[in-house]
Amino acid sequence: MTTPYDDTNIFAKIIRGEIPCHKVFEDADVLAFMDIMPRSPGHLLVIPKAPARNLLDIAPEQLAVLIRQTQRIAKAAVSALGADGLTLQQFSEAAGGQEVFHIHFHVLPRWNDVRMTPHPAPMGDKTVQAEQAAKIRAALG
Amino acid sequence: MTTPYDDTNIFAKIIRGEIPCHKVFEDADVLAFMDIMPRSPGHLLVIPKAPARNLLDIAPEQLAVLIRQTQRIAKAAVSALGADGLTLQQFSEAAGGQEVFHIHFHVLPRWNDVRMTPHPAPMGDKTVQAEQAAKIRAALG
Repeated sequence: MTTPYDDTNIFAKIIRGEIPCHKVFEDADVLAFMDIMPRSPGHLLVIPKAPARNLLDIAPEQLAVLIRQTQRIAKAAVSALGADGLTLQQFSEAAGGQEVFHIHFHVLPRWNDVRMTPHPAPMGDKTVQAEQAAKIRAALG
Repeated sequence: MTTPYDDTNIFAKIIRGEIPCHKVFEDADVLAFMDIMPRSPGHLLVIPKAPARNLLDIAPEQLAVLIRQTQRIAKAAVSALGADGLTLQQFSEAAGGQEVFHIHFHVLPRWNDVRMTPHPAPMGDKTVQAEQAAKIRAALG
């Protein structure tokens, strides 16, 4: 469980601006962007900018900052998209379901009686995702 | 999304000691106990003692305390049970998968190539769960 952080992962590349994303929020500590394979409409990811592999190695104070921003963004997403609820997921290590080894919280807006698309979901429509990101950014104010 | 907190839920009863649980951790702010329908070995729940329905209404500072204890307990569970990783879940409102309306983080220790039992999982073996809780308590020190 002590695998070191590897900064060649795709989220590190997004943080460095080497790969584009549909950005929802960014400050000095945190970045939020749409998941390219959304399991529900508005599925987004919230990550810290500082390196951390997952819940097993992230510094507690960094985790506290991350969850507070995750809550703020999740509430904005639910409001902006008119969702009925939300599902939060975090996967640590491959056994736990992790595929990109930079810690991330999945925020999945949910609607009554609508199941999540099973993983792996198909690629999202970029126009739709850009619109969703814009709505959530607007709700964040 | 503004449904008020209802203190007749089962976790409020566990906090008040009206219903027993296999306790993993308790302090002034947080309680952790085994999920009676474990979706993986060692599946436990971490809840705040103060009333909060879910991620949409919990006070940010209370959420920060909750996630820090959740991380500490999750790391202890992974270590104590020899897990290969973990899955963290939080469901807000029925649409998001929530069934008990007192906010809780699901901590699911995971092993390589072992799927989670689909929800609803069968009731766990009480003797096994008591042993798991004791192991995790010991790892928490």
